[in-house]
Amino acid sequence: MGVTGPAGFRAAGIAAGIKSSGGRDLALVVNDGPQQAAAGVFTTNKVKAAPVLWSRQVLQEHRLRAVVLNSGCANACTGPQGFQDTHATAEKVADVLGVGAIEVAVCSTGLIGERLPMDAVLSGVDGAVKALDATPQAGLDAAEAVLTTDTRAKQSLASHESGWSVGGFAKGAGMIAPNLATMLSVITTDAVISGDDLDTALRAATRYTFDRLDVDGGTSTNDTVLVLASGASGVEPSTEDFAGLLTEVCWDLCRQLQNDAEGVTKAIDITVRGATSEDDAVRIGRTIAEDNLVKTAMFGSDPNWGRIAMALGRVDAEIDVEQLEIATNGVVLFAGGTQARDRGEADLSGREIEIVIDLHLGEHEATVLTTDLSHGYVEENSAYSS
Amino acid sequence: MGVTGPAGFRAAGIAAGIKSSGGRDLALVVNDGPQQAAAGVFTTNKVKAAPVLWSRQVLQEHRLRAVVLNSGCANACTGPQGFQDTHATAEKVADVLGVGAIEVAVCSTGLIGERLPMDAVLSGVDGAVKALDATPQAGLDAAEAVLTTDTRAKQSLASHESGWSVGGFAKGAGMIAPNLATMLSVITTDAVISGDDLDTALRAATRYTFDRLDVDGGTSTNDTVLVLASGASGVEPSTEDFAGLLTEVCWDLCRQLQNDAEGVTKAIDITVRGATSEDDAVRIGRTIAEDNLVKTAMFGSDPNWGRIAMALGRVDAEIDVEQLEIATNGVVLFAGGTQARDRGEADLSGREIEIVIDLHLGEHEATVLTTDLSHGYVEENSAYSS
Repeated sequence: MGVTGPAGFRAAGIAAGIKSSGGRDLALVVNDGPQQAAAGVFTTNKVKAAPVLWSRQVLQEHRLRAVVLNSGCANACTGPQGFQDTHATAEKVADVLGVGAIEVAVCSTGLIGERLPMDAVLSGVDGAVKALDATPQAGLDAAEAVLTTDTRAKQSLASHESGWSVGGFAKGAGMIAPNLATMLSVITTDAVISGDDLDTALRAATRYTFDRLDVDGGTSTNDTVLVLASGASGVEPSTEDFAGLLTEVCWDLCRQLQNDAEGVTKAIDITVRGATSEDDAVRIGRTIAEDNLVKTAMFGSDPNWGRIAMALGRVDAEIDVEQLEIATNGVVLFAGGTQARDRGEADLSGREIEIVIDLHLGEHEATVLTTDLSHGYVEENSAYSS
Repeated sequence: MGVTGPAGFRAAGIAAGIKSSGGRDLALVVNDGPQQAAAGVFTTNKVKAAPVLWSRQVLQEHRLRAVVLNSGCANACTGPQGFQDTHATAEKVADVLGVGAIEVAVCSTGLIGERLPMDAVLSGVDGAVKALDATPQAGLDAAEAVLTTDTRAKQSLASHESGWSVGGFAKGAGMIAPNLATMLSVITTDAVISGDDLDTALRAATRYTFDRLDVDGGTSTNDTVLVLASGASGVEPSTEDFAGLLTEVCWDLCRQLQNDAEGVTKAIDITVRGATSEDDAVRIGRTIAEDNLVKTAMFGSDPNWGRIAMALGRVDAEIDVEQLEIATNGVVLFAGGTQARDRGEADLSGREIEIVIDLHLGEHEATVLTTDLSHGYVEENSAYSS
């Protein structure tokens, strides 16, 4: 269960003819209220797709009635006409739902540089509105309609004992590290919460979840995470409770994104401890996550800690080689400036790999999720345009 | 011809038994003078191999009689004992040649974290000194003895009409981007030049050559470029002439490193023009060079400019999407904020690919050399420890 889990939401996912494969490619999520609070976080890339420019603008009011999403075309690098296409899509959704265009966010994912086939999009909106439903199946249809090179739909739902819940779907591979052209996620809740509080909670949650998933270091032109609150449960949770459940759903979606990244054969968690600042811990974790020599070693199940040390050493962060410890899957391989154990003692043959770096310099830590660099990754990204 | 091209130098490359393959793995380059000026640039990685720590120290005097290099073991992350091994190697060379250990630089390349087999190294030094010769073959032997995953020796020689020359060899894939564990280069000249001037010339030359070769974004623990001047020609060139010839040799070696990088199927030159600063141009060029989505697209001969735009947009540099132009192999594909030509018009099927970015914001430019990300790269770096 995903976006239709919380009360007050309907969703749909249909085949509008945008993808040449004929698969589902247009999703709609509608907030039937009684409230329509909303918040969003967007890509930091300077090259922003038209739907990001549009949605960021309408989100300034912290209020949304609906989100329309398409796969098969990113509508990025498409100039003023691309922006008009996004605007026309929002207008169409607004017309059919009887709301204002400023209450409709738009997300797109797919190949950069191509124009949207607007005939297909606009007639698709009609079909999607007709298909709107509050069932689990309707939520799944929406989750499927945003997929590109993903191999499966990714949904999550968490409920609080006091009678409200948070649900969502996601596609892609990371806020800071999309593998295709985008990470998109729509999250819903029936909690009673203001737009400002929702915004604060979303920024806090993504900082520890989507922002710490790094598959290949990219930052897409289209990355978007939206959260919509209907208030339909009538329950107003505490700030801590809401932040907790939202973070749980974001984390679960991240895990699913990690495990469905392009060409993935290893799910790698990199924890950096003992840093003098959280920024240092994140920066070190991310540099290791993006290092192709580390990623290929992991693909080969090789606990080659020398490559981890090399990656670490090129980070602009406080490091003392004498204090540094590097462990893989629980075995400390490097300590005191030299090899601590034969690397053959660390078994990385399974799918899950844990790399733990202890800098022994301070109290801060962070965990970054990543994947290996496999033949599958190269194949997917060289043999097909995406 | 390489290091034995300029007068005043002898070299040797022998099989000392460090590499399990039994191939050449110990090289020696000796400066017979009459002068012994020298300069070096080293990795910026915080995790520095023992030979880097040693050589950086002895180079403070800007004077060297000899350089001893080994492949098969990086002697990095080996603690105080690793440093003692380097020291003992320099002492041995000094003893046999009858010079001071402080006049001997040491370079190592190979797997990180392993100790050097010192018996093999020390008896290898005896053998190398016996094999010293000023012939082209001796220079080639030395160039071969430093190779690791390189497929061929890389040498260069350039002569000035006034009777002096610059020669050298190199291994690896880049000062800022080694593919294995190291980029090493030794360059010789028979020009008459002071150590200080040599240092200035080397820093200027590497800035535009080795520093702009970026195969996979790594920075090794062992990267070293050394230049030795014998003064044997008796000619003291102008600063400009010397810088010119030195840069020519460095550039030629970089081209050879690019074309022999791990798994390379495409030699890609990325030129960024119209930047408001040279730093911006370099940073943009390097980010594109390191982007796995761009590198895999190039492997697939796909002029996927959307990935180039995505990589560009995540750089912390001044960019205006409306002004930006992206061309591959001479065809402008993106301009004025949108697609300029169908990407099918750019043919990237050959080995050499030129990506030209024009930011149209200023007068600065830079060219970064890189390679594609191929199945061969993944295979070499996952199937074998290196």
